[in-house]
Parts: sequence; C-alpha cells; structure tokens
Amino acid sequence: MKIITSVDEMQKIALKIRSEGKTIGFVPTMGYLHEGHLSLINHARKDNDFIILSIFVNPLQFGPNEDFDSYPRDIYRDEQLAEQNSVDYLFYPTTDEMYKGRLTTTVKVTQRVDVLCGRKREGHFDGVATVLIKLFNITQPHRAYFGMKDAQQVAVVDGLIKDYNFPIDLVAVETIREEDGLAKSSRNVYLTAEERNVAKKLYEALSLGKEKILQGERNAFQIKMFIEDYITNNTNGKIDYVEIYNYPELTEMDQVSGKIIIALAVIFTKARLIDNITFVV
Amino acid sequence: MKIITSVDEMQKIALKIRSEGKTIGFVPTMGYLHEGHLSLINHARKDNDFIILSIFVNPLQFGPNEDFDSYPRDIYRDEQLAEQNSVDYLFYPTTDEMYKGRLTTTVKVTQRVDVLCGRKREGHFDGVATVLIKLFNITQPHRAYFGMKDAQQVAVVDGLIKDYNFPIDLVAVETIREEDGLAKSSRNVYLTAEERNVAKKLYEALSLGKEKILQGERNAFQIKMFIEDYITNNTNGKIDYVEIYNYPELTEMDQVSGKIIIALAVIFTKARLIDNITFVV
Repeated sequence: MKIITSVDEMQKIALKIRSEGKTIGFVPTMGYLHEGHLSLINHARKDNDFIILSIFVNPLQFGPNEDFDSYPRDIYRDEQLAEQNSVDYLFYPTTDEMYKGRLTTTVKVTQRVDVLCGRKREGHFDGVATVLIKLFNITQPHRAYFGMKDAQQVAVVDGLIKDYNFPIDLVAVETIREEDGLAKSSRNVYLTAEERNVAKKLYEALSLGKEKILQGERNAFQIKMFIEDYITNNTNGKIDYVEIYNYPELTEMDQVSGKIIIALAVIFTKARLIDNITFVV
Repeated sequence: MKIITSVDEMQKIALKIRSEGKTIGFVPTMGYLHEGHLSLINHARKDNDFIILSIFVNPLQFGPNEDFDSYPRDIYRDEQLAEQNSVDYLFYPTTDEMYKGRLTTTVKVTQRVDVLCGRKREGHFDGVATVLIKLFNITQPHRAYFGMKDAQQVAVVDGLIKDYNFPIDLVAVETIREEDGLAKSSRNVYLTAEERNVAKKLYEALSLGKEKILQGERNAFQIKMFIEDYITNNTNGKIDYVEIYNYPELTEMDQVSGKIIIALAVIFTKARLIDNITFVV
C-alpha cells in the first residue's frame, strides 16, 4: 500500500491508472475505520483493479457547534487496517493541501437536505458535496462506495453525481448489523446494558413496518404511528423522528409506493441511534 | 466528424479515448461560430489527439431580461465550419438532454464576478460554472480552450478548475484583432462608418496605458484617467468602465504590480464594445 499526501501525486496516479484502461474503486472516509468502512473496501476490491481509500476530516462539513476538533482520529491504526484489507492507495491529505487558496465558488445542496438528520445540520451537506467534487476529480474513480447507514448522504451523492454527470457508479453498501439486528455504530458502546438489550427493537420496528406494507397497508401516517408505538412500548428511547419518504428523492408521500425509505432516529441516555431500510413497494 | 447529441454517448467516447492514453482538447461554445472560435479550435488541434467542440446555448447563464430565445443559431453553418476545421466530435445536445431531472444542488461563483461586465449580469457566471462542470465531466478533456476576449470568463473558469481540482489545463487564447487592432466581434457590424473608423482607438488606449506602466507609472487611478481621456478625446463612445485589476483574481489595487488586466467597455450608438489586455508589470 502506498500512502499519498499530495493532491497532484494522487491525481497523477489515478489518471495513469485510467489511461491504462484499469478501474478504480474509491472509498471516501473521515478515518477511524470500523467494520462499516471495511465492508465498503471489501466491496470495492471485488469490482475494481485498484482501491483508493481517502482519510480526510473535512472541516467544511462540520457546523460551528459540531465536533471537528474532537472528531476521533487514529491514523496509525487506520493505516494498518487499510493495509490488511488490500487498499492500494491511502490518500491522506492535510486540510491546507485540500483547500489551497480561497474558494471562488460555493456548492449548495438544495434538495434532499431539509429532512431526517439534515434538518438539524445546516450546511453539512454543502461541505460534503464540495469535498466530494474535489475528491472525485482527484481520485478519478469508476465506482464510489458509501454505506446505507447514512442513507441521506447516499441520496445527496446520488443527486450530485447526476447533476454534474460524473462518470461514476455510486455503490450503496448495506448496513452491517449485530447478530440481533442492531446497526453497527461506534456509538453503541454508549448504551447502558439495558438499552443495548432493547436497541434491537429499532430494527425490529423497521422490519415490522416493512412487513405491514408488504401485507397491503399503504397509509404512510398509519405505518409511522405503528413504528413509533412499537419503539415507545419496547424501549426507553425518545423518538427524534420516524419518517417514510420516496428514495432517493426524500420527498413526502401520503400513500407509499415505488422505492421508499423508512428511517428513524432514537435518543437514549448517552447515545442517539439512527437506522433505516429501503425497499420497493 | 461525428455529431453526438447524447450525453451518455459523448461521455463513453471521451472515456474510451482517455483509457487508450490519447488526449482530448475541448472547445465549449454556444454556436454561431466566428473566427474567435476557429482560433480556439486551431490551438486545440495542435495540442491534442482529438477535438471535441460543444454547441449548447445554456439557458442557465441567461438572465430573465437577456436574449436566450433570440440568441443567434445556425447549426448547419456551424457543422460545416467544424468539419472544415477538423473537429472530431461535435457535441450538440438539447436542453432537455443536458438538464434531465431537477437539479439537487446549485453552484454559485462568489469571487471574480461583481466586477467588469459581471456587475450587471447577476447569476450569469453561476450558470456558466454549472454547465462547465457538466461539460467537463461529459467530455473529459485534458485541455479546455477559452478566448481572452472574455477575460472575466477565463478568470472564473480558472477559479472553478482550481477549486475542484479538475485535471484540466485551461488554455486562454489571445483575442483575434482586425488589422487596425480592433478586437473582432460579431457586434462590430453595428458600428456606423465613422464609429468603425475610431473604434481602433480602444485598443490604442489600452496599448498606450500599458506603455505608460512599462515606462514607470504605477498609480492605477492615473492610468485609468489617461485611458478614459484618450477614448473621450478620440471617439464619440460613452465609457461604461475602464478598470485595472489583478489577474485572474480581479481584485482592485492602488499601485499596479504583478499580473494585471486593463479592461474597458465603451458604448457606441448601436453597439457596446469590450476589450482588454493582460500583462505582467
């Protein structure tokens, strides 16, 4: 594995790979790699000649009250994990290297953002879009890998790629789950023993909601109520939201049809958990 | 020459050329080709294996009171000129083909726009930036060619390419002039005989301003005054602006130094003429 810190060097390598007719799979991350990232890398390895993994904690996507400075970093462990998982190029630029000079333009995401977690993170996806246009141009991927755990991010990236005709296949990789169905997350360790025990009820609620739809229920409000009741009756968590939207447009509907997402966020004592499922009705 | 109307087909061809290690020169236009465009094509031919010429009248870059509908179009003549000048691919998409579906994002140009002609064309360069990101991704050029006649556009494109790390060399091609120095423009035909006769004074004024600087004058205000006086004394045109800026940043300065642009716009009876020179002090 080669570690690259220079934008120009990374881009030259990527363009050379392309000019030789080989394919590139790109996994963008902010580091502190976990099983979710490794799953993305494993998918990328199957489809491409080369894998580029980027680790860049992007200041643009953090709000003024968010945790840019305290965001967890462990580059030595990340390097080992990347190496062990057959990453070819680890792209690890500094903030100055990525943002040389003053930007003369801004990108604003206008659709798919004022819903779900995006509602409380104004400007977050603008920062995501900006850094991704840059990273796509630097790493020149044929395919880019994102986890469905952050389904809203996948929806925004889908829009970005189509808006600007990037020649990139967006590969949305399924959420990795514990044996009992709980979506894996570094935040799960903040759950109390009792909370951890009932946390599986979130995925159960989503699955039961899906079952209701597949059995014929079409009223979005009724399905949301059912899911909310199930969570309230089976956990001590406080519901932040339970939503059903068209996917990836993230627009509301009264009667469910087509490709949809059921997404939720639930607040426990010291952890806010999110989860979602997408499927075609 | 092949005429391509499909975004997907154009992109596939461009990616194939790249994957075979060949180079692409890209000349973006809104059609109604004139000598300026042909000069861009001729430069592109010298440097690249393949030339892609795009003809697309981009609605996004026209303001509500501008002339999108009446913008001159003559695709049959353009096809002949492109063919005669050894263009390999003429990319000629419809508006619907370029803007499929609702955009989920917007690009705003925040620097280099509220000066010169941009001051009166709010949103114009946002539309230019949006379509260029798309066209760059569709045509995958190694080099993109723009005329220095529109020096502000070149400055904006320079910012765009650097902001987002597009692997593209921006080639700024010198303004084509009549024998007496007048910058060629389709608008020159609207000049009266007398106006056409004195219109050469615009370039003379720029050249004399440059001479003053090279002889030691550094005060930007004095140089502007000199140029304005020269135009007022030698033509019947009404000065819209005479400006001296850093280039390509298009920021003001009191004392000229570094790379600068002297730019002007002068209004005649039925035509508004623009011209500029850039050089290093």
